[in-house]
Amino acid sequence: MRLHKLQKILEEKNLKCAIISNTASIFYLTGYDYISTDIGNFVALVYCDGVPTLIVPLLELYRAEEKIKDIDVVAYSTTFTGDKIIKGNLKDAIFSYVHQNKIGLDIQNTSSTFYNYFNKYEIVDLSKDLSLLRAIKEPEELELIKKAGEITSASMKIAQDKLTNSEVSEKQLAGIIDMTMRSEGAEDYAFPSIVAFGENSAFPHHVPTDKIIKDGQNAVIDIGARYNNYCFDSTRTFIKGNNLEIKKIYEIVLEAQIEAIDRARDGVKAAEVDLAARNIIEKSGYGKYFIHSTGHGVGIEVHEYPPVSPTSDAELKENMVITVEPGIYLKNKFGVRIEDTIIITKKKPIVLETTFKYL
Amino acid sequence: MRLHKLQKILEEKNLKCAIISNTASIFYLTGYDYISTDIGNFVALVYCDGVPTLIVPLLELYRAEEKIKDIDVVAYSTTFTGDKIIKGNLKDAIFSYVHQNKIGLDIQNTSSTFYNYFNKYEIVDLSKDLSLLRAIKEPEELELIKKAGEITSASMKIAQDKLTNSEVSEKQLAGIIDMTMRSEGAEDYAFPSIVAFGENSAFPHHVPTDKIIKDGQNAVIDIGARYNNYCFDSTRTFIKGNNLEIKKIYEIVLEAQIEAIDRARDGVKAAEVDLAARNIIEKSGYGKYFIHSTGHGVGIEVHEYPPVSPTSDAELKENMVITVEPGIYLKNKFGVRIEDTIIITKKKPIVLETTFKYL
Repeated sequence: MRLHKLQKILEEKNLKCAIISNTASIFYLTGYDYISTDIGNFVALVYCDGVPTLIVPLLELYRAEEKIKDIDVVAYSTTFTGDKIIKGNLKDAIFSYVHQNKIGLDIQNTSSTFYNYFNKYEIVDLSKDLSLLRAIKEPEELELIKKAGEITSASMKIAQDKLTNSEVSEKQLAGIIDMTMRSEGAEDYAFPSIVAFGENSAFPHHVPTDKIIKDGQNAVIDIGARYNNYCFDSTRTFIKGNNLEIKKIYEIVLEAQIEAIDRARDGVKAAEVDLAARNIIEKSGYGKYFIHSTGHGVGIEVHEYPPVSPTSDAELKENMVITVEPGIYLKNKFGVRIEDTIIITKKKPIVLETTFKYL
Repeated sequence: MRLHKLQKILEEKNLKCAIISNTASIFYLTGYDYISTDIGNFVALVYCDGVPTLIVPLLELYRAEEKIKDIDVVAYSTTFTGDKIIKGNLKDAIFSYVHQNKIGLDIQNTSSTFYNYFNKYEIVDLSKDLSLLRAIKEPEELELIKKAGEITSASMKIAQDKLTNSEVSEKQLAGIIDMTMRSEGAEDYAFPSIVAFGENSAFPHHVPTDKIIKDGQNAVIDIGARYNNYCFDSTRTFIKGNNLEIKKIYEIVLEAQIEAIDRARDGVKAAEVDLAARNIIEKSGYGKYFIHSTGHGVGIEVHEYPPVSPTSDAELKENMVITVEPGIYLKNKFGVRIEDTIIITKKKPIVLETTFKYL
């Protein structure tokens, strides 16, 4: 239970009430994981006058009670009444616990509908505080991310083997990878698996198709397991057979990635890590083809604080977990990306992906 | 290209400018599918003075251009300049196209950050219009949903077979299901597959664990393929071996489900369909254990308009696609849910899931 961390933030801001809507932050603070593919806000953690209350939709009441024992759980329902059920919607339920005019909200991750519940209140934004809090991982969190990394690495090795030894489509390979992640212990995927062959790999966020890999083509595999609610994020680029042009680009990306990892440590600006990778790629003449950030924080969410980009103002701290993933994308030809998830330390970072990345 | 449908909405509302942020609606209107697990808004369709412009992050520029040929695509980047690149963030890019003070927004699905971009503007909410538009499917959309249904049904049959013939954990079975969906042609899953054995099935939104099914236990399998960006949603409850208590509950849920499907047709209120299922379960004495809605619309999003709940004010129309999924959940014992995705017609609905549902 990490509620004392929230309490500390509220004290610093002279606040008596916070309403947390981001499900990842709710999990961080309480241990309750709400799974949804929907965009709106359906659960909330109300923490007013030192008393936490978790509010969930009725269909989640049993599961929430099972997950957390030390926080009051109530459900809202427009249809049902009963013990632990507040008649109404999420808004009605929240306001039955709020007796202040000034409240802390994690604005950055709320829906506009949710935000508008509070338009008569004085609002203090807690987004940045919660992001920073979650960015520096506790030892137990690092263990879970490591385990998610082992699962991901095992799946990556299976993918490499399949690419080498069989004719396989992007969708089929994504399926094999996903099944392996599950059978290795993942309860879900951190994000939809990206498997891109040949010219499709020029799209950083390609969606798998029926395309079958041909000899001399490359495959970009960007995958991550979710283990006990912690994410991993890893990319490997493989070449089936030989292709000197792809290999040349690969060596540039690899050098950029190693350089950036080398730069990453406690006290260094995230933007410097981005720059380390970007400089190598620019010097090679491919600067305009590296069209995204070098990385991002990873944890309960696959994309979280800190951003590792040219405009990031974040400073890396010990026990932050970030990705380092430079890439070069040549439209109508191919793309190359190499990504590791790493733990920041006071010295060299700990690289968690174990799949071999030298061609 | 369905932009003329948006044009018609704007004319009715005497609007000259709309900014669409919901990625499913952007796909519906343009054919560009933005994939993200992140909560914020990263893409926007600006449609002002009759001119559509799709704005994407730089890393998606190539892919967006590949997907759509008849709409201008521009990218935003804080780092890069160049042809088709607007220097700045999404907000900067949007405002370079907006020359009106009154704009239409799909408020319901935007993040609060995005919504706040427009706090100096007069805003007209388009959420409901877009939901209604997307709810009534065109023939091509129905074909894609049918195909997603075939993929899902094939996976469900594999799941049933595995349950009967082998010892398998929830995670392993979810993995087999997911791989089958991919190999049958799904580019992704409509939502994280739910596989729940025994007492875990009392949680409607259970997350797969290492639990292995035992003889006499049930399995609730709630899965859906995504095919060409269209979702499917299906649930079956299987019993491994025999269990008379589960069978009794199963028969009640099945009767409720059949009754609700029977009631669903053009011109009928969605709430009546919910009531049809709810009445059967209540009469059997299990009313308080049916803790969620009877269903929801399905399409580009797995949960979309119309809600099929006691408080829904929606009226069913021909070619809407909805789920019918009553359930009974007995804490510490088991749960039963049976769900079909159906097409509303003027007569009996078309049931798309083909997995046998009689025990």
